[in-house]
Amino acid sequence: MKQKIVIVGLGLIGGSLARAFGKYTACCVAGIDRDPAVAEAALSCGAIAKIGTEDDIREADFLFLSLYPQACVEWTRSHLASIRPGCIVTDTCGIKSWLCPRMEALAREGGFSFLGSHPMAGKEKSGFAASDADLFRGASYILVPCGAPREAVEMLKSAALPLGFSGTVETTPEEHDHIIAFTSQVPHALACSYVMSPQCPKHRGFSAGSYRDVSRVANINETMWTELFLENRQALTEELDTLTGHLTEIRNAVAAGDAEALRSLLRRGRLVKEGLGE
Amino acid sequence: MKQKIVIVGLGLIGGSLARAFGKYTACCVAGIDRDPAVAEAALSCGAIAKIGTEDDIREADFLFLSLYPQACVEWTRSHLASIRPGCIVTDTCGIKSWLCPRMEALAREGGFSFLGSHPMAGKEKSGFAASDADLFRGASYILVPCGAPREAVEMLKSAALPLGFSGTVETTPEEHDHIIAFTSQVPHALACSYVMSPQCPKHRGFSAGSYRDVSRVANINETMWTELFLENRQALTEELDTLTGHLTEIRNAVAAGDAEALRSLLRRGRLVKEGLGE
Repeated sequence: MKQKIVIVGLGLIGGSLARAFGKYTACCVAGIDRDPAVAEAALSCGAIAKIGTEDDIREADFLFLSLYPQACVEWTRSHLASIRPGCIVTDTCGIKSWLCPRMEALAREGGFSFLGSHPMAGKEKSGFAASDADLFRGASYILVPCGAPREAVEMLKSAALPLGFSGTVETTPEEHDHIIAFTSQVPHALACSYVMSPQCPKHRGFSAGSYRDVSRVANINETMWTELFLENRQALTEELDTLTGHLTEIRNAVAAGDAEALRSLLRRGRLVKEGLGE
Repeated sequence: MKQKIVIVGLGLIGGSLARAFGKYTACCVAGIDRDPAVAEAALSCGAIAKIGTEDDIREADFLFLSLYPQACVEWTRSHLASIRPGCIVTDTCGIKSWLCPRMEALAREGGFSFLGSHPMAGKEKSGFAASDADLFRGASYILVPCGAPREAVEMLKSAALPLGFSGTVETTPEEHDHIIAFTSQVPHALACSYVMSPQCPKHRGFSAGSYRDVSRVANINETMWTELFLENRQALTEELDTLTGHLTEIRNAVAAGDAEALRSLLRRGRLVKEGLGE
């Protein structure tokens, strides 16, 4: 029998999940969005097979919540009576320590399985219009099992892998948030800080790959990232302090004209990168 | 008659210039490198037509110095008697305020034309082995005319444009160095600082484009960049202070849990990037 999938939130990630399930699996995908025009657009272009109803939620094998973290919790709380025991519920949020305990409490109350997940894929654009069936090709799929039964974890893996992920990693909410502060949140804070330089508007003709790479994600969705940053306050503050600390060491060596200190700092960076085989 | 080009220093940039002149123009290219094995390698793979001699220097229409800044000055001083009046000498260095006055003094002494130039192209790898005839395709070619006659500037432009550059911009040494501190030097300092985080070695499975982009140039040639950073001490120190200042504003908003301040900082970054049409 066809697996029934309900995707709540048809933005960049939810829309891409819908398209990918449609393209690469035989699952039946119902989509829900608070904006009726988005749900209609997803239906009319074939990204979803139907617009999801309470009955679809009741019959779902998998429920993907592609909403901001607070909205995930609110949506789940208000649909608790419709989620059947046995349904596997997951999110796609960029933070977990704030989210997972709240969702686990709701899962216990509603008798369903919850595990966190985070597809490591994105774009500089957001919204359904930017969604793409191939967004996840080659990306890692992070699983945060929390208290979910092993069987639920394996079922989510099996459902997701045909979408083109390069593989999965499993972790705790705390480890997820600390590494993500480094790999994803710091680069976004950095891109915005970087383009604030008075030199930025003069870059054309004077720039190449380095400018492009550091500034790329400055095209930020500030509402979403404000929520994600504040729900990962401690780890992100720590990572930003680590970065500015190292930047300041380089700055001080430059300002002092200390070639030996500067060379040794830059070498340290190179050795880390080389040590990773990159 | 074929134009005669001598390229001194057959690393990534000099080697790529040699290959590009060979591939896209009818110029005769002689190459010089302090390492005889590199010059032999360039000759045997056809990247240069011959290994340059003092006679080639004497007959050159263009002399490209693809050396570190201090080595440019030293090489020129020690070959001053061989550079004929009428020869157009240029460098390919990433800093100009330190270099240009020194090279201009030598040009006056030797009676040749000097103008600074900086092809905005590079790679994470250095050395002749990484050189590529198509390195300059789509890149900007920055010209720093200093006191060179207009005719020399136009001749260098005409010689270089067939190599695939998207265009040229002209500027002063001071403006060059301040913008380059932002577009190129800060991203290199940043990449090294970024990978020094204790989280870095754990990134696999938890990272995507953002990590890759910010860390890309951490594979740094620390000897070259130490010299370039220290020869642009003031502008680089200023740009690093500007960046850490903005990063600290974001950090403080995160640490204080101040959603309004954080949203407004991120929005400011987005508006700059959008305002540039990027």
